[in-house]
Amino acid sequence: MQLSPSLSALVEALRCLPGIGPKSAQRIAFHLLERDRSGGTQLGQSLLNAMDKIGHCESCRTFSETPVCDICSNIKRQDTGLLCVVESPSDVLAIEQTGQYQGLYFVLMGHLSPLDGIGPNEIGMDVLERTLANGNINEVILATNPTVEGEATAHFIGEMCHQHNVTASRIAHGMPVGGELELVDGMTLMHAFSGRKAI
Amino acid sequence: MQLSPSLSALVEALRCLPGIGPKSAQRIAFHLLERDRSGGTQLGQSLLNAMDKIGHCESCRTFSETPVCDICSNIKRQDTGLLCVVESPSDVLAIEQTGQYQGLYFVLMGHLSPLDGIGPNEIGMDVLERTLANGNINEVILATNPTVEGEATAHFIGEMCHQHNVTASRIAHGMPVGGELELVDGMTLMHAFSGRKAI
Ligand SMILES: [Zn+2]
Ligand SMILES: [Zn+2]
Repeated sequence: MQLSPSLSALVEALRCLPGIGPKSAQRIAFHLLERDRSGGTQLGQSLLNAMDKIGHCESCRTFSETPVCDICSNIKRQDTGLLCVVESPSDVLAIEQTGQYQGLYFVLMGHLSPLDGIGPNEIGMDVLERTLANGNINEVILATNPTVEGEATAHFIGEMCHQHNVTASRIAHGMPVGGELELVDGMTLMHAFSGRKAI
Repeated sequence: MQLSPSLSALVEALRCLPGIGPKSAQRIAFHLLERDRSGGTQLGQSLLNAMDKIGHCESCRTFSETPVCDICSNIKRQDTGLLCVVESPSDVLAIEQTGQYQGLYFVLMGHLSPLDGIGPNEIGMDVLERTLANGNINEVILATNPTVEGEATAHFIGEMCHQHNVTASRIAHGMPVGGELELVDGMTLMHAFSGRKAI
């Protein structure tokens, strides 16, 4: 039996969701068609809207629907002189959920990985360098993941900070090495922040 | 931290997917935005298209993009005089995948469940009665799930068949009682078909 064109297109498209194989994709498609068509339509519209409207903040590179994001636009946060460098927007979310950090962010959207062709330009080092050069940042907190690539990226950015006479610190390794920052609980993350050391 | 409007709408909309909680929804949204925007757009379009275009076959009630589905339109299948009654379109798919059944289907889109307000009209008994009355069906194979509601529904339709002098049979219980037809392997399903008994 051939699935009808729109149905097989939907099953195929659902495979873009992480961890969804062909069998699960088929079950999801039938579930939505049988039991939740308004949910399916709503999801379709939300996806198109999000993929179209959500870009990146010009200043910190995190997801934003405006040229500059809410955090970067916040004068109180600018006044802290703190800039926390993370690998992804979900890391920003994880840190914000601790409620303890009041400074700005810079989101690399990845990490240095020369073998994959990801060099300084791909992780926004030109943008970060302009930020460091304008003199409003007193300390850069390096919160990249505690992996080999994350450490190498932190080291690279630490050197750049020294060139601009900006203090650089690395969050403490309270989290398991090889783990992912966004999966760590808030308490561990707070300890990692408070235990940061100058590098 | 507030997620931006389009992002929080997307996270909320992803909750319509079976088994996706708030944390998973957020991870999926960030995954699509960070790594697979074209996949996200494609999925959005496929969802809107499928929810809009896919209706139900006038004759058998399964999913169809045309007024009458391919199976119902197939003269060879009409000539068998066989009609298999199942609860859902995914059951049709499971039976078709065995490649052994050549007759027609009737899809209840559920089962009798008086406590939930699902009576004969809600599962298309008016449509099925017209089909039985026009005299082209020789045997109805009752392939509802082997659950309490599935058995009660099969019994109800069996009575209707007797009134129209149409033979009714129930697929053999080769499958675990309480299980779902669409989850059974093809071999078990074939045995269940070949071992069917007149009721
Ligand atoms: Zn920003
Ligand atoms: Zn049909």
